[in-house]
Amino acid sequence: MSDPAIRIALVTLGVEDLGRASAFYEAMGLKRSRASQPTFYMYDMAGVVLALFPNDMLAEDAGVEGEGHGFRRATLAWNVADAAAVDAGFARVMAAGAVSLKPPYKTSWGGYVGHFADTEGHLWEIAHNPFFPLDANGAVSVPPPREGVKK
Amino acid sequence: MSDPAIRIALVTLGVEDLGRASAFYEAMGLKRSRASQPTFYMYDMAGVVLALFPNDMLAEDAGVEGEGHGFRRATLAWNVADAAAVDAGFARVMAAGAVSLKPPYKTSWGGYVGHFADTEGHLWEIAHNPFFPLDANGAVSVPPPREGVKK
Repeated sequence: MSDPAIRIALVTLGVEDLGRASAFYEAMGLKRSRASQPTFYMYDMAGVVLALFPNDMLAEDAGVEGEGHGFRRATLAWNVADAAAVDAGFARVMAAGAVSLKPPYKTSWGGYVGHFADTEGHLWEIAHNPFFPLDANGAVSVPPPREGVKK
Repeated sequence: MSDPAIRIALVTLGVEDLGRASAFYEAMGLKRSRASQPTFYMYDMAGVVLALFPNDMLAEDAGVEGEGHGFRRATLAWNVADAAAVDAGFARVMAAGAVSLKPPYKTSWGGYVGHFADTEGHLWEIAHNPFFPLDANGAVSVPPPREGVKK
């Protein structure tokens, strides 16, 4: 079909404390875009933009109630080149104020992964997956469907 | 600093009904990677990978309790080239089974945006932002910090 496929241009994370959340991500090397607004911070992540926005404004914007708690049903993955980079990145996020959920461990599928939450409870993992190469921007590449599979 | 910046390689959305959720995203033009597993589907989105994974397995993986409800504190944005593409994309997601939260409207900041939830309640917007150009892959580009800003 010729219509464009859905894609993720921005991931916006709701925050209670924009100063603390932005300090975390900036400590992790992100540079705040000069197009950021007083309550809407943007960070270029080489292919996708991360935005931070107060929870109440995010809910109002989305047209949903702002109450919610518990499991948020989504995780973000930061893939890195090898196991040593997982350990180093995990140490960096801890130093920057993240909460450890699972320190790096070898997974059943042959990867090496650590799980953490940012200062706002958003769920992340840092992962080395030996089966998926990273491109020069650090993006993961997964193979297309098998040829001949009905699109 | 020389350490790599944190970035999003994969966004994993928790699902109750993997068949229904995958049908939605595949109707929206995504092609399921052949590296997908029976309960872990992956879709290349040109710079970021979307994954679908059962909620209970996602929570266990992340090391958190699987109970949760209400506002999930994050949204995904699909940026498109113009207002007509917002209308067309919104019609497509509705036909594919999304829930309308706010049909496309002109925003106070000069954009044109529609809000919807996927078949699993994950929050999305489809947006035309006249201030941020799209690259050939449909990624948004936001400007870096002003020169001279302390890194």
